[in-house]
Amino acid sequence: MNAYILGIDMGGTKSAAIVGSMTGEIITRVSGVTPAQEGSDAIVPFLINLGRQAKAQARVELTGIGISAGAPAEARRGLVFEAPNLPGWPPDGIPLATIFAEAFGIPAALENDADATALAEWHFGAGQGTKTMAFLTVGTGIGAGLILDGKLHRGATGAGGEIGHIAVEPEGRRCKCGLTGCLEAYSSGPSLTRIAIENGFTGEATGPAVVAAARAGDTAALAALETAGTMLGRGLATLCMLLNPERIVLGTLAVHAADLLMPPLQREITARTWSRLRENLQIVPAALGDRAQDLAALCVYLQRFPPQENAGTETFGM
Amino acid sequence: MNAYILGIDMGGTKSAAIVGSMTGEIITRVSGVTPAQEGSDAIVPFLINLGRQAKAQARVELTGIGISAGAPAEARRGLVFEAPNLPGWPPDGIPLATIFAEAFGIPAALENDADATALAEWHFGAGQGTKTMAFLTVGTGIGAGLILDGKLHRGATGAGGEIGHIAVEPEGRRCKCGLTGCLEAYSSGPSLTRIAIENGFTGEATGPAVVAAARAGDTAALAALETAGTMLGRGLATLCMLLNPERIVLGTLAVHAADLLMPPLQREITARTWSRLRENLQIVPAALGDRAQDLAALCVYLQRFPPQENAGTETFGM
Repeated sequence: MNAYILGIDMGGTKSAAIVGSMTGEIITRVSGVTPAQEGSDAIVPFLINLGRQAKAQARVELTGIGISAGAPAEARRGLVFEAPNLPGWPPDGIPLATIFAEAFGIPAALENDADATALAEWHFGAGQGTKTMAFLTVGTGIGAGLILDGKLHRGATGAGGEIGHIAVEPEGRRCKCGLTGCLEAYSSGPSLTRIAIENGFTGEATGPAVVAAARAGDTAALAALETAGTMLGRGLATLCMLLNPERIVLGTLAVHAADLLMPPLQREITARTWSRLRENLQIVPAALGDRAQDLAALCVYLQRFPPQENAGTETFGM
Repeated sequence: MNAYILGIDMGGTKSAAIVGSMTGEIITRVSGVTPAQEGSDAIVPFLINLGRQAKAQARVELTGIGISAGAPAEARRGLVFEAPNLPGWPPDGIPLATIFAEAFGIPAALENDADATALAEWHFGAGQGTKTMAFLTVGTGIGAGLILDGKLHRGATGAGGEIGHIAVEPEGRRCKCGLTGCLEAYSSGPSLTRIAIENGFTGEATGPAVVAAARAGDTAALAALETAGTMLGRGLATLCMLLNPERIVLGTLAVHAADLLMPPLQREITARTWSRLRENLQIVPAALGDRAQDLAALCVYLQRFPPQENAGTETFGM
């Protein structure tokens, strides 16, 4: 027996609906440009429409829905809130999980995308086999999904994992979130670019351009990556001392620029942790690449509604 | 039916053995000065002897043993390692839980004292009723015990919770642990005293004397407490952003000097967290006072070997 899940990946730029099996096989994928500036009144019907298209194409019976939201979310109540790049949502959020459950007549679960991707890397990617791991998105923003003692840690109000906004330089750069000295103000893609330009970088103002220039020996770009790696290492050192994970999985920038980021990152971790806390620690790049978001949406459903012991299907370990 | 537990509280200055019930009633207590400088060869027989005395006085049948170790410990294997104030232990640690289990012929469990006290405050004290809480010792050292999703979080190698050694001022004071800018280098009792003296404090070089002087208006002492509270707030802000606890329970210094520490602490938390992450957060003083260490030792056993549903005994929620 194979049960199929509808996965919704809501992003600030693009969104997708997929249909996949419990073992991660994607059979249908439909995507579209998110009407990000038009508020939830436009985005909710857009997402439902994507879901309907994916369902129609897949022609299989669906068991449930998993939603990965690229916005602040409250998993327990299935709510999504406004984000800087997704304005125009009501202050109390939108009950997106309930809306999908009612529209499709099957159960729906929702997580923010950092938590959802942490689940995907844990179940299908670079986090497999661990009990305590952290997954970090290091892209436009920096966020973490924490798997602690074999379970996704959501915190009291489902709002934890904000490693991008812990202070790594308390009197340092102002972050666009309003706080000061946040990790994200140093090591996100846009911050990397901004710091490179401040250093005198004159190339194209994008993360990939800065990384390419650094590889070609551009000193301004190299210095920006040194800063990004050092600050990322500082954030990870705090994570280690506090939570003692066995593995940290780094996404996006840390995958594409590992050669430049990892040396300063490792130096900083060594300088800011006790050997006892880092000796068994593995820091690895994310493994799922482009498949991460699709699998993330599936995993959101699977962790909330673990499959029963079906023939040949390992139960989802939560 | 009432089952009794032998509790061992191993401290760097004093140690105690107690006999108590599953509901926290202490019926016997024996204590002695720890032969701290004489190494594990002296300390282990000293602790076993304390345990034998408590057992003899209590004259009840013992079900098991809980050990709270004021030293680095590895809970899963029941090991205790050398600490700066407890030198002379073998590098691989001492299997104290196994030694006690064999000496008394009953099961034994072991945790470090921050984790053990977190369990005690959670079960009997200021953390009751929460699912996600942090307990912080703020005394000679600073450490945390984390209860996450209703379970003690130990981390991959049982070495987490080291909030005292996350960097709150990355280029700041050198900590006696060897790292730089640690919370403990600002907000522990000895650091408070040291900073007060650097500020010009001329009274007795103890934490209580600094606190008393601050209450009397001594500006050097007041400034040191302002620093200690600010840095403690900084550490707690990181904890909140990362773990989103519903309650933080503060021990020792934060109990005795709450009037002086809490205002700068609250200011710093407000400055360094998002409102969404602090709006439901409670920061409260520890409630168990002198009973904490005794109850901590009991809780170490109770969380490892939860009581079955006996008449009138609520099961220990782990």
